[in-house]
Amino acid sequence: MTETRRPIVDLTEAEARLSLPLKWGVPEGVIPAWVAEMDYAVDPVVLEAVQRMLADGITGYPLERDPALGESYAAWSSRHFGWAPQPEAVHEVVDVTAGVRVALDVFSGPGGVVFPTPGYNAQHGLAGVTGRAERLLEVPASAGRAEIDLDRLDALFAAGAQTLLLTQPHNPWGRVFTRAELEGIRDVVLRHGARVVSDEIHAPLVLPGAEHVSYLSIEGTHDHAVAVVAASKAFNIAGLKCAQLLVPSAADRARLADQPMSRNDSWSPLGVAAARAAYDHGDGWLASLVERLDQQRTLLGDLLAAHLPDVRMRPLEATYLAWLDASAHGHDDAAAVALERGGVMLSAGHSYAPGSTGQVRLNIATSPDRLTEIVERLAKAWA
Amino acid sequence: MTETRRPIVDLTEAEARLSLPLKWGVPEGVIPAWVAEMDYAVDPVVLEAVQRMLADGITGYPLERDPALGESYAAWSSRHFGWAPQPEAVHEVVDVTAGVRVALDVFSGPGGVVFPTPGYNAQHGLAGVTGRAERLLEVPASAGRAEIDLDRLDALFAAGAQTLLLTQPHNPWGRVFTRAELEGIRDVVLRHGARVVSDEIHAPLVLPGAEHVSYLSIEGTHDHAVAVVAASKAFNIAGLKCAQLLVPSAADRARLADQPMSRNDSWSPLGVAAARAAYDHGDGWLASLVERLDQQRTLLGDLLAAHLPDVRMRPLEATYLAWLDASAHGHDDAAAVALERGGVMLSAGHSYAPGSTGQVRLNIATSPDRLTEIVERLAKAWA
Ligand SMILES: Cc1ncc(COP(=O)(O)O)c(C=O)c1O
Ligand SMILES: Cc1ncc(COP(=O)(O)O)c(C=O)c1O
Repeated sequence: MTETRRPIVDLTEAEARLSLPLKWGVPEGVIPAWVAEMDYAVDPVVLEAVQRMLADGITGYPLERDPALGESYAAWSSRHFGWAPQPEAVHEVVDVTAGVRVALDVFSGPGGVVFPTPGYNAQHGLAGVTGRAERLLEVPASAGRAEIDLDRLDALFAAGAQTLLLTQPHNPWGRVFTRAELEGIRDVVLRHGARVVSDEIHAPLVLPGAEHVSYLSIEGTHDHAVAVVAASKAFNIAGLKCAQLLVPSAADRARLADQPMSRNDSWSPLGVAAARAAYDHGDGWLASLVERLDQQRTLLGDLLAAHLPDVRMRPLEATYLAWLDASAHGHDDAAAVALERGGVMLSAGHSYAPGSTGQVRLNIATSPDRLTEIVERLAKAWA
Repeated sequence: MTETRRPIVDLTEAEARLSLPLKWGVPEGVIPAWVAEMDYAVDPVVLEAVQRMLADGITGYPLERDPALGESYAAWSSRHFGWAPQPEAVHEVVDVTAGVRVALDVFSGPGGVVFPTPGYNAQHGLAGVTGRAERLLEVPASAGRAEIDLDRLDALFAAGAQTLLLTQPHNPWGRVFTRAELEGIRDVVLRHGARVVSDEIHAPLVLPGAEHVSYLSIEGTHDHAVAVVAASKAFNIAGLKCAQLLVPSAADRARLADQPMSRNDSWSPLGVAAARAAYDHGDGWLASLVERLDQQRTLLGDLLAAHLPDVRMRPLEATYLAWLDASAHGHDDAAAVALERGGVMLSAGHSYAPGSTGQVRLNIATSPDRLTEIVERLAKAWA
């Protein structure tokens, strides 16, 4: 599948305010660098696929399952990651977080859910929504490398937790777990007969230097794990509403098939079409995106070195979301200070790591100029 | 708001197969009259609103809440029903069934959910999804009029149920509950301190001769009830993914606001735009639709009288879904016989009323010709 490269098109501020109403719903003069959306025009090939659906008058219910989506995902996955689920393992869900919820509800025992933290803010509380306790497995801000501490994981399972919510690649750590790390996790999980739900939404956004390894590609995981994947984060289409739950075990698929329809039936046919277009024809755009994000990552490193040398960032291996420790500047809520004094809207660290101070998440998926302006503003604001 | 009338445009079979992949995903030669979708082109005003969103590149996250949607719904509701919630009572949800689920999870006690039956098949099992028992309140096929038996409702609450899942207008009964009936229900509910979730998705489809009364417009309901509404059923846009949960009590709104985001965050910005277009500008199309459905209702009555005089149908007061008792023909599964011998795909009665035999649900939202062909085929199949 050799695709012609398509360029990344930066949105002007006016365009971004129109296209990204949530992210850019900020007052005049504020630059948003918070929610995980990119200031780039959607891949025209994906957009056209959705526009074609509407031109065909498709606004109603999707197929109960679209086998073509499983084929598209499997082909994409083997091209990009060198591993693929069977097409019949691929199940539509409305979005990734809903897929994680379905997985917990259907496959997990009633014990607690281990949630490594800092962790994706919108999934804090999700364990509770499913009636389970949330067990934080903290990576301290001081840790040299963001890793899942296997002894603590073991202890949490020993104390009754029954599921690990893995985020691979990790938001906001920016980490890509290695095969060896995943094998270590698997061994602990197997020892306790626990389950894993692996949120792999950021897999297409692994940057040069790292390689995505699906937890499901690790031997011995299929009987205890599912993954949730999507084209939505890499292609800026979270509003079109279709992610995919990968269920590699036939026994688990049978359990899922036994659920009442209302457990999982809210995805959109437009989301299915968008996902298929992205998986089938998106390589030429994604390659340009990854190249751009790699440049933005380098630029961020340079800008921090020049303007904010005391802000610490671990290597960004994936995602366009940089986790910054600005605590050297002494602000309890560095994000609030950035907004008030600098007019930059970041994501506050304490929403990812409850109780933490001085940390922020910065979204670099914008133009080089805007990223430069952001860091210059932060330097003034935090000074 | 005087709107120019827009006509109902019938889809040819080829167009319907393209536009309605679920409903028309039937073999050549079969006529589908099952799932609740209409063989009519979508209102161009609604379609254009969604197309404009895509032209503007809006494929990402919607606003956390769009106050304009509440205004649009409130204006629509007062125009059509002579009653409206406060705009701030209107909350986005991804679809109606998901809204019912949110309501049960957030507002209801752990006791059982009373589910009048025959009841909407995709909501059978929903109580169980929320961890509650489903308590059927049966309307026997022999009943002269489909009504909620207040003594049985009282007994079910006395035995521990804590919520009534009301469907108003009712699918598949085709009933529109009167104000007096709703007051009777309210009195029983109040006596037991129970809750009501009122699924009012079919409210725009009340046919001439009846009038929609929202359960929330009944005095003394706001502290124990919410309603779930949508433009999706009336405008054939269930795939665009936005319904509305109406929460009239400030205390309940506070409870909802306290939920983790992952409890309810899956609706699409395209669904919001479609709903707003339908509420703001859809009257001229909806009036034509109701006129057409009224004609189809009359035609069905004539066709049954001519070809299937032993099939019984109670008066169809709302919806385009006729509940037929074909048990005089002696088939255990009348829908299966209709498909095998007649090439007509109906919804099987036992999916609405577990254990029932000989009943079917027939979707009349098609052309007069197709409806005629359907009934002629049924007459031959069931003979
Ligand atoms: C790890 C992770 N999972 C899920 C999501 C959101 O996915 P969705 O909108 O499909 O629930 C995000 C968004 O940034 C994320 O970072
Ligand atoms: C009573 C009732 N509620 C809900 C729905 C479906 O709504 P949604 O697709 O928004 O869940 C239907 C569909 O026919 C219905 O009849």
